[in-house]
Order: sequence, then C-alpha cells, then structure tokens
Amino acid sequence: MEGLGYAISVLKRAVELDTAHKYTESLVCYQEGIQILVTSIKGVEDESTRTKLKQKTEEYMGRAEKLKKHVEELKKKGSFREQMQIDEGATGYSYDKVFSRFLDHSVHRVDVEDPYIRSPHQCDNFLRFVEMCLRQCPNLKTIALTTKADDDNHVQQNTRLAAIRKSVFTFSKGTVQVTLEFSDALHDREIRLDNGWVIKIGRGLDYFKPVDRLSIGWSDYHFRPCKATTVDIFHNKDLHRCHY
Amino acid sequence: MEGLGYAISVLKRAVELDTAHKYTESLVCYQEGIQILVTSIKGVEDESTRTKLKQKTEEYMGRAEKLKKHVEELKKKGSFREQMQIDEGATGYSYDKVFSRFLDHSVHRVDVEDPYIRSPHQCDNFLRFVEMCLRQCPNLKTIALTTKADDDNHVQQNTRLAAIRKSVFTFSKGTVQVTLEFSDALHDREIRLDNGWVIKIGRGLDYFKPVDRLSIGWSDYHFRPCKATTVDIFHNKDLHRCHY
Repeated sequence: MEGLGYAISVLKRAVELDTAHKYTESLVCYQEGIQILVTSIKGVEDESTRTKLKQKTEEYMGRAEKLKKHVEELKKKGSFREQMQIDEGATGYSYDKVFSRFLDHSVHRVDVEDPYIRSPHQCDNFLRFVEMCLRQCPNLKTIALTTKADDDNHVQQNTRLAAIRKSVFTFSKGTVQVTLEFSDALHDREIRLDNGWVIKIGRGLDYFKPVDRLSIGWSDYHFRPCKATTVDIFHNKDLHRCHY
Repeated sequence: MEGLGYAISVLKRAVELDTAHKYTESLVCYQEGIQILVTSIKGVEDESTRTKLKQKTEEYMGRAEKLKKHVEELKKKGSFREQMQIDEGATGYSYDKVFSRFLDHSVHRVDVEDPYIRSPHQCDNFLRFVEMCLRQCPNLKTIALTTKADDDNHVQQNTRLAAIRKSVFTFSKGTVQVTLEFSDALHDREIRLDNGWVIKIGRGLDYFKPVDRLSIGWSDYHFRPCKATTVDIFHNKDLHRCHY
C-alpha cells in the first residue's frame, strides 16, 4: 500500500495547488499522482477496492483534463498568470522543478536575460540550465543569452561563456547554438521560451545559496537552500512574433 | 501526436529489453511508456482510435504485470541475474539510470564496497550517489562505505569523507548515518541494498570520463561519457540475514 499512500499525498497536493490557482504546478502533481495510482491499482487484490480506485483515477483524470483546457484558454486569451514564492532557505526548487514543466518538443528557442552570468558559479548555473534544455527539448535550436559585461573580469567572463558555447556546439553536432550578447540596458531578468512561456525570477538563475563541496546539495540542487525570490509565470501567445 | 510517437518508441525499447532478458530495465520502459500513453489518449479526438489505444494500453499493462511477477519469482528462487554493458565513451548512464529502479521505500541500508573513494572527484561521486539515495529512499537509515585507505593522502581522504558524513547527519537531522570502514581486503566492487538487490560495477562508482568544467556533462552525468564497464545485477533474497 506504500504506493497508494504516496499517490494520495501527491494528489492532495495537486488539489491544493489547483485551489491556489497554481495551475501548471498542479497539473504536474495530478499527472504524477495519477501515474502512481495506475501503477498501484494492479497490486490491489480486492476487486471492489480496485473498482473504487479506478473510479477515483477517472475522476482525477477528468479534473486534470479540465484544468489543462482551462490553462489552454487562458493562454489563448493571453491572460495566464501564475506565481511561485520561494522562501529564504527553502529547498526543493531545482531548475527542474521550476522549468521542466514548460520545456518540451515545442521549444526551439530559449531567450535568457540575466545580468549576472559572469562568476564561475553563475556560469556553472547557466551550464546546468543549458543541460536541462538539451535534455528536455529535442527540437532546440538556439539558446540566446543576454547578460551584462563584467567590467572587472570581462575576459574571464568571455572565456567561460565561450567554453559553454563551444561545448554545446560540439555536443549537439552543430544543431544547437548558444548566442551571446552583452547589454547594459537589461531591464529585467526573464527567460522566454518560443512556445510562449515567460518565466521571471526576481534573482535570475542565481537564486541558490552557496553550499560547501562535499555537502548535500552540492551536486543535487533539489537539496540546495534558496535565497528568497519570486517566480512569475506568464504565457505570451504572440511571443513568436518578437523573434522571427 | 508527439506524445504518442514518443510512447511508441519507449514501448518498443521496453519490448527489446524484455526480449534481451533485461527485465528491470524493461519494466522501467514499460511503466514510462504506459504513463505517456495514458496521458496522450486524452488528447485523441477520434473515438475508435481511442478505444484501440486503450486496448493497447491494457495489453502493455498486462505484459508489464507478468514481467513483474516473473522478476518476483526469480528473486524468490535467488536466481535473478541481469547485465548492463556500458561501452567505452557511451553516454546516458547517470547513477539515476543505473540505480534508481532499485531504490525505494524498501531500502533502509545501503552497503557500498569500493576501494577507490579517495580523490576529490571520487568523493564527489560518492556524494552524488548519497544524494540520490536520500531522494529515492524515504526510509533510509544507513549508508555503509567500505573503501581502501589512501596510503599517500589518507588525511585528506578522511577529511573529505568526514565532511560527507557530517553533512548527511545534519541534513537528515540524524536519521541517516554514513558509516566508514577502511579495508585492504576488498574483494569486489559492489553495492548492496537491504531489499536484496546487489549491483556490481566493474569499475565501481568511478566509471565516468573526466570532462572540462563548463562543458556539457560536467553537472549532468546523463551527458558524461563513460569508461567501458559491466554492470551485473543480482537479487539475494537472504541478504538481510548478513546485516542484522
């Protein structure tokens, strides 16, 4: 019954997020919960319990389906808004958690505007973000970074970013390009996907606290404590017009 | 139809692995494929296509269920054997890929026997492995590492491993302990879980090639090229007797 208990707690979370209008997060939980439920039902011996669980599954599926349609409608109207509050010291906010639900085959281009991609750990963060995009977006073509030139260490910054560009080019056999622009006029920190999603993080990609090497959270950002920040999520149905 | 295409390719892989007697890997693919299929069906408008897809889903579920029972039988008989061959330079063999399917709520104790947990990158690897165990095993109590003392740099080795121990203790609020033993008589490299699974990797945890910082694969081991090695998987139904 371990699986069932887990499914119930995930689905409870889905309903909470649903009620709080955190629709895209809620959808992830519904899907995860339904999947565990489907897998768990097979292990249940009692026929009537199984029937009940199957009904429950159908209910949750219906709800998830409705929610999905609702999100699609909001996207069409251009009125999709969602917010995620990351508290000081909170864990569980890896890039995967924050971005993965928006990254899929429909993404060809990712625009990153973040003034602080310069120090070693900031460039590591950017690389980590790029790796995630490569994993999640089979049709990716371009990652366009706009950042501020580091007046004190511009050469090192350039060298670091050039290394990432080169590695992405080689790794993807030239199918994915990282483009780079320095700008002093960055008005905002935001990440735009050409499927219309816009994710704004108050602190940009650098919202993690440092941890010591050889400490939990050093390699798995799921365990890394965060600085307090707000993630605003929009959907811009006309976004593609800006780029092409 | 993107989702459906992906489901089909994952399920095709499941059948291939099934045929090759790579049962635990196959089960992961069946489950993943079935989940994508279940989610995709909802998006199909045509009623008769939906009915066919539902039948197909039921078929795959039945097959996965049979396979699961078969694995259980082999486990009971103590005759479970599976092998994974990692080729020189191959990618896609993160610790997650190799270990995750054996790590769940049934694991309380993990025994790692690996003579080479000493240099900085080897200790990083061990930390990464520990982080994965913490994420996957909610009932984890002990990770017991047996390794060889580094004659040249035993102090540094000790300091590194002590840092990991301390971090795990603090992070888990004392619920998870890392124990440490140095032995010159290590006969084999193996990882034993107290749910009975034994995973032997020819090269131990250090089967990745080095990559440059700021290169794809530096943080995401899914992209990191491997050294050629063989992973042998057993199930020892009497394993718990050895420990308690």
